[in-house]
Amino acid sequence: MLTLYDYLDSGNGYKARLLLAQLGQPYRRVECDIMTGRTRTPEFLAKNPNGRIPMLELDNGVCLPESNAILWYLGHGSPFVPAERLAQSQALQWMFFEQYSHEPYVATPRFILRHLPANSPRRAELPDRLARGRAALDVMEAHLKTNAFFAGGRYSIADIALYAYTHVAHEAQLDLAPYPALREWLARVASQSGHVPITFEPS
Amino acid sequence: MLTLYDYLDSGNGYKARLLLAQLGQPYRRVECDIMTGRTRTPEFLAKNPNGRIPMLELDNGVCLPESNAILWYLGHGSPFVPAERLAQSQALQWMFFEQYSHEPYVATPRFILRHLPANSPRRAELPDRLARGRAALDVMEAHLKTNAFFAGGRYSIADIALYAYTHVAHEAQLDLAPYPALREWLARVASQSGHVPITFEPS
Repeated sequence: MLTLYDYLDSGNGYKARLLLAQLGQPYRRVECDIMTGRTRTPEFLAKNPNGRIPMLELDNGVCLPESNAILWYLGHGSPFVPAERLAQSQALQWMFFEQYSHEPYVATPRFILRHLPANSPRRAELPDRLARGRAALDVMEAHLKTNAFFAGGRYSIADIALYAYTHVAHEAQLDLAPYPALREWLARVASQSGHVPITFEPS
Repeated sequence: MLTLYDYLDSGNGYKARLLLAQLGQPYRRVECDIMTGRTRTPEFLAKNPNGRIPMLELDNGVCLPESNAILWYLGHGSPFVPAERLAQSQALQWMFFEQYSHEPYVATPRFILRHLPANSPRRAELPDRLARGRAALDVMEAHLKTNAFFAGGRYSIADIALYAYTHVAHEAQLDLAPYPALREWLARVASQSGHVPITFEPS
């Protein structure tokens, strides 16, 4: 059985949890508290030298880190991964956008605000990070004004990748009121068959 | 004909230039000086609202940004993209690693040192960025101690993605002496058929 090394508050972990639920794929979940160094133990680093969750361990012991690579692996051959060359490349385009231009400026402020003390020196990073977060939301809004989804004209792993932290952007002090197309897209994603909330755990 | 919007000093642009050369694919190159705002003009933003190079414009006018998505598109169906599910996912794993854990800490210090004035306040970012850059090189070294390439046991787009800024890491004040396996891999990549240097321009 697949094993997902995970942290329940992580949007990156949620990407895998959401797709696994929508695929109806059974798996074992191992909660790793990133606040107590659980992903920096020698045992964990032997599985992922980059010391991060989520990480998917396959039946044969192979460990696959990087949330968006896990989406690719899990979704392979399913309708959640576009089959056609350009749509596939566009799904990946948005998934690289997510990791480079969105996650550090939406997920990281959320982490600083939720998990670090109110007097953390890292609060000084917030104004710049949130400005870049709004720039990322602007880019998404521009696309969603004329597109229902991010790639291939239908719900895909690109939507899952971007939904994970965008739908909790308010927890990063990012106001979604100026982004009507984005808010409609959030509702569209949440209405997909088999959708589960970020706190979902398999029974 | 394909058009690559590019900036010759960019490692992200070099990824596309290198693969295009190795594929023997003709293309038109449009140099965009990122230092004079060429990627933030209304004309450019209409093609890529995220305002970045490289960007690949297809014959039908579709514009594909994100260097690693461009590698995916160009390499589709070629030996440069692994065909098998796990190897494909592992290639993407390293390409997401490159954008999230490597590029901001190798490419950005190089940019600060090469393109911003010596008294730029952004120099204050260097110690933290370079420490994270060394952490990324550590992760690569651990993999390369027992693997000739990053995915599928052969040269692929994952190697191109990671080679682009690693081979100029010295320009970011990162010393590669402590990374013998990584230095052997750099030589292995440079010895691949059709390899071209970062300054290569099609005739």
